[in-house]
Amino acid sequence: MVSLEDILAIQKRSEVTRTQILEAALICFSKNGFDATGVAEICEVSRVSKGAFYHHFPSKQAVFLCLLHDWLDGLETTLSAITNEYGTVPEAFTKMVGMTQEIFTSASGKIPMFLEFWMQARRDPIVWEATVEPYKHYQSIFANLIKRGIQEGTLQPVDPENVARIIVAFAVGLLLQGALEPDATNWTGVAGDGIQMLVKGMKK
Amino acid sequence: MVSLEDILAIQKRSEVTRTQILEAALICFSKNGFDATGVAEICEVSRVSKGAFYHHFPSKQAVFLCLLHDWLDGLETTLSAITNEYGTVPEAFTKMVGMTQEIFTSASGKIPMFLEFWMQARRDPIVWEATVEPYKHYQSIFANLIKRGIQEGTLQPVDPENVARIIVAFAVGLLLQGALEPDATNWTGVAGDGIQMLVKGMKK
Repeated sequence: MVSLEDILAIQKRSEVTRTQILEAALICFSKNGFDATGVAEICEVSRVSKGAFYHHFPSKQAVFLCLLHDWLDGLETTLSAITNEYGTVPEAFTKMVGMTQEIFTSASGKIPMFLEFWMQARRDPIVWEATVEPYKHYQSIFANLIKRGIQEGTLQPVDPENVARIIVAFAVGLLLQGALEPDATNWTGVAGDGIQMLVKGMKK
Repeated sequence: MVSLEDILAIQKRSEVTRTQILEAALICFSKNGFDATGVAEICEVSRVSKGAFYHHFPSKQAVFLCLLHDWLDGLETTLSAITNEYGTVPEAFTKMVGMTQEIFTSASGKIPMFLEFWMQARRDPIVWEATVEPYKHYQSIFANLIKRGIQEGTLQPVDPENVARIIVAFAVGLLLQGALEPDATNWTGVAGDGIQMLVKGMKK
């Protein structure tokens, strides 16, 4: 008979394998790019068999989307903590300035990989949808925040959807520039100045 | 003896060939991406021999960089016309709102191709330098404009280099989002709102 301990041990081992695959894939994708990385290489680096790999993920793309979502989920947790805190919307934006270091650190080395994936995803509608979805999600988070600011009377009656797109565009552009030239400047300083400028541009 | 007319005719024919190569390359790169496009394909589409191709360009990369610079030169001409016109710096930014349609139209279909190239350029320092250079160039144009605004007393004493990076980040992020989801919204409207927000954030 299989005991509860056995089941838990199997579950635990399965989780460990999954994490090993994700960690190895991140190393391979970052180093050689998405296209040049094969499942065989991920298996070799993670010391996981092909059978075990395909037990956890149907494809290389699936691993990639998992890495993308894990990263974005982490960012969102921090973002939600800030926006749900008691305080006005301009105050929430000011708190985000303190988040920029964390965002740049967590994005470090990942941006070129995500861009490469996007380029490839353009030819696959399902993968495409999964890739564009986080964009839309962040846009709606910011649009809601702007709406709250207008309601509480701290922001001007701007167009929440447009402003949300402006914020996301700024964040994406900054992450991209930071990825292209990491040592060109103090990127967190630029991010902080940018957030403050945008807030000043919206404030009543 | 070779007459002046003959020389001019040869020059003319050479220019036509060069333009044919560039036009064909733009079609191929936009359709299939940079990596998947070969010199042979560009020659076929442009109806130019391989010999003629290599007479004009040393490599596929050279054609690509030429397309990039032609595009950016066109944008810069429009931008210079605006920034050199008589008027305050906030007025110059307001005039840029009217430029956004032109930028989006000229960028249409090109952004994914440029991103793919960047991703590949990361592994070649010389190509990399040539790719990052336009970034730096635009940054210095905007930094000078901000400095002028501070001097003329229309802008607050912001950090010109940081603000220039913020503007470039916003523009790049917006072009990228516009490329990913062209029909999601009225991107020129978003761009216009963004410029106005940024100007409001800098104004005295």
